[in-house]
Amino acid sequence: MKITKVLGTLGLVAALAISAQAAEKKVRWKIATTWGPTAVPFSSAVTNMAAMVEKMSGGKFTIRVDASNKHKAPFGILDMVKLGQYEMGHSASYYWKGKDINLMPFTTMPFGMTTPEQNSWFYYGGGMELMQKAYAKHKVYSYPGGNTGNQMGGWFRKEINSLDDLKGLKMRIPGFAGEVMAELGLTVTNIPSGELYTSLERGTIDALEWVGPGMDIRMGFYKVAPYYYTGWHEPGTELQFLVNQKKFNKLSDANKEILRVAMRTAAYDMYTENYYMSAEAWAKIKTDYPDIKIKTFPKPVMDAMKAANKKLLAEKTKGQPMLKEILDSQNAYMKKARAWTILSDFNYLKDNL
Amino acid sequence: MKITKVLGTLGLVAALAISAQAAEKKVRWKIATTWGPTAVPFSSAVTNMAAMVEKMSGGKFTIRVDASNKHKAPFGILDMVKLGQYEMGHSASYYWKGKDINLMPFTTMPFGMTTPEQNSWFYYGGGMELMQKAYAKHKVYSYPGGNTGNQMGGWFRKEINSLDDLKGLKMRIPGFAGEVMAELGLTVTNIPSGELYTSLERGTIDALEWVGPGMDIRMGFYKVAPYYYTGWHEPGTELQFLVNQKKFNKLSDANKEILRVAMRTAAYDMYTENYYMSAEAWAKIKTDYPDIKIKTFPKPVMDAMKAANKKLLAEKTKGQPMLKEILDSQNAYMKKARAWTILSDFNYLKDNL
Repeated sequence: MKITKVLGTLGLVAALAISAQAAEKKVRWKIATTWGPTAVPFSSAVTNMAAMVEKMSGGKFTIRVDASNKHKAPFGILDMVKLGQYEMGHSASYYWKGKDINLMPFTTMPFGMTTPEQNSWFYYGGGMELMQKAYAKHKVYSYPGGNTGNQMGGWFRKEINSLDDLKGLKMRIPGFAGEVMAELGLTVTNIPSGELYTSLERGTIDALEWVGPGMDIRMGFYKVAPYYYTGWHEPGTELQFLVNQKKFNKLSDANKEILRVAMRTAAYDMYTENYYMSAEAWAKIKTDYPDIKIKTFPKPVMDAMKAANKKLLAEKTKGQPMLKEILDSQNAYMKKARAWTILSDFNYLKDNL
Repeated sequence: MKITKVLGTLGLVAALAISAQAAEKKVRWKIATTWGPTAVPFSSAVTNMAAMVEKMSGGKFTIRVDASNKHKAPFGILDMVKLGQYEMGHSASYYWKGKDINLMPFTTMPFGMTTPEQNSWFYYGGGMELMQKAYAKHKVYSYPGGNTGNQMGGWFRKEINSLDDLKGLKMRIPGFAGEVMAELGLTVTNIPSGELYTSLERGTIDALEWVGPGMDIRMGFYKVAPYYYTGWHEPGTELQFLVNQKKFNKLSDANKEILRVAMRTAAYDMYTENYYMSAEAWAKIKTDYPDIKIKTFPKPVMDAMKAANKKLLAEKTKGQPMLKEILDSQNAYMKKARAWTILSDFNYLKDNL
């Protein structure tokens, strides 16, 4: 073999080794979120995911986080991911119910599954397959993006003693719960988190629901709307990671798995983090915020919510086979899972009150 | 520059690139588990973890799973990991209470935290730090390894109508719950899962608790002990991954994170998988296993268990500052978290019975 040939071969090996490394180094993604940069634990779920991806890939796969103050389109996440302006997004699937009704049930449903019930539906009971099926027409993959746990029913300026007290109120409440409230005579709207306090303070809205004590109290809602109602409408709110299909399919197998596992851990961790934040905030509520009045909607109001929910679901699923398929799957699974929840955790808690 | 020098430089670059890859390729670990190879979801938590590590590392980090039928030492996991015979183990921390009492509380405690409460204590409420502190003297790192959720109280041959019916029974029940049962007059023992059915069938034991419907029914216990009691003693049983400290510290930063995240996801997934399995099994219990008699311990028995638990804890923590520190941390956090659990999930379930 001539020296020049050896030189050429070695050069090629070196070049290939270097270029293989360089190629690996090129994955630089961006994620757009619906939230502000300090909306912990929504924001921390995203930074937690991005940090895991970076560390696990040895720095070869990084994801820049653009919060809503950067991209200015808190409710434009699905479109931006679909168009490839961002490789990924973090939002809540029910925000797109006006665009595609089939995406709504993957966040939560009024009187629906609790978080452990819903997680087991997603990962072992067919939920993930249905979610991919519903998102396929948008050329986007969707993954659970973190659960808030059972949400509080919201902040009201005045006590709600009857259905009449609800009529005519303007309330920020998204998802199907908003339709239930509209049926009861409220005017409902969705507003990005950054504008919630101002909207409530200025009277653009009379009431709102956001998440629970861990997130709500730092938002200051209690200063203008001190009646804090327990939940019925979002028993296990799951956010979503959205990923542009084309971009995902181009990843190496290792990076696909790194991303999948990082999203999954970040999602689970968010539920755990919010549980902790809620427990801590709740423990301080009586001493630090004595003016907050904890209330439960009166039974006639709750009964009217349940009836409206049932009626609207029947109307909504007419001529919507995929929506019906998703809701039927959720309801059939919930029936089984709820029996177990009652026998296990519920009875245990009851015996130890 | 002479051709030979160029050749030498290029050769060195190529050799370095190749040897760097080869060095990365060398991580081949083994994990020993307390369980048999088909004890889903305990066994699947481990294979799930190992599969994630392999995929995320692009095959450069693999972990061979040795179930108890291979290594023949189901309760020898801590020792084997400590001595470096295995880099990792998967077991339950309360199995070592005879060896080191401080390791006991990291699995579960009678009348203790539910799974979401305990997870939030581990990851955000100081639990992980206490667990590492307790395991440090064994030169082992410990991580949550999967939660069973609320466990059933166990299978009995005869109905338990009074404290007298419990006295003299031989029961398989590990952890602190075993000490509570001993205080009530039972003879308690721990037996590996593979020998449970035979022990019960042959009368070596009169009763046992294992996990819950998802795992128990396939074990066939109902054939010989049809009275199935609801739980009090293991409200959120967390298994543990154990990792030899020296071996872990030698991993690259990327592999450390890959392992940490894979263990965390596998642990969370196990809870979700067991929830699903329990819901499915529970839904079929009445139709497929009509001879199983679901029971709750009578109130005087439950009250005696609570009193024994309290008395024994006071005795146990005397002269044991670290055990006291761990239990105090759990109890203080549980008090806060339970108030939130009751306000959120418990009330929601109650309103929708």
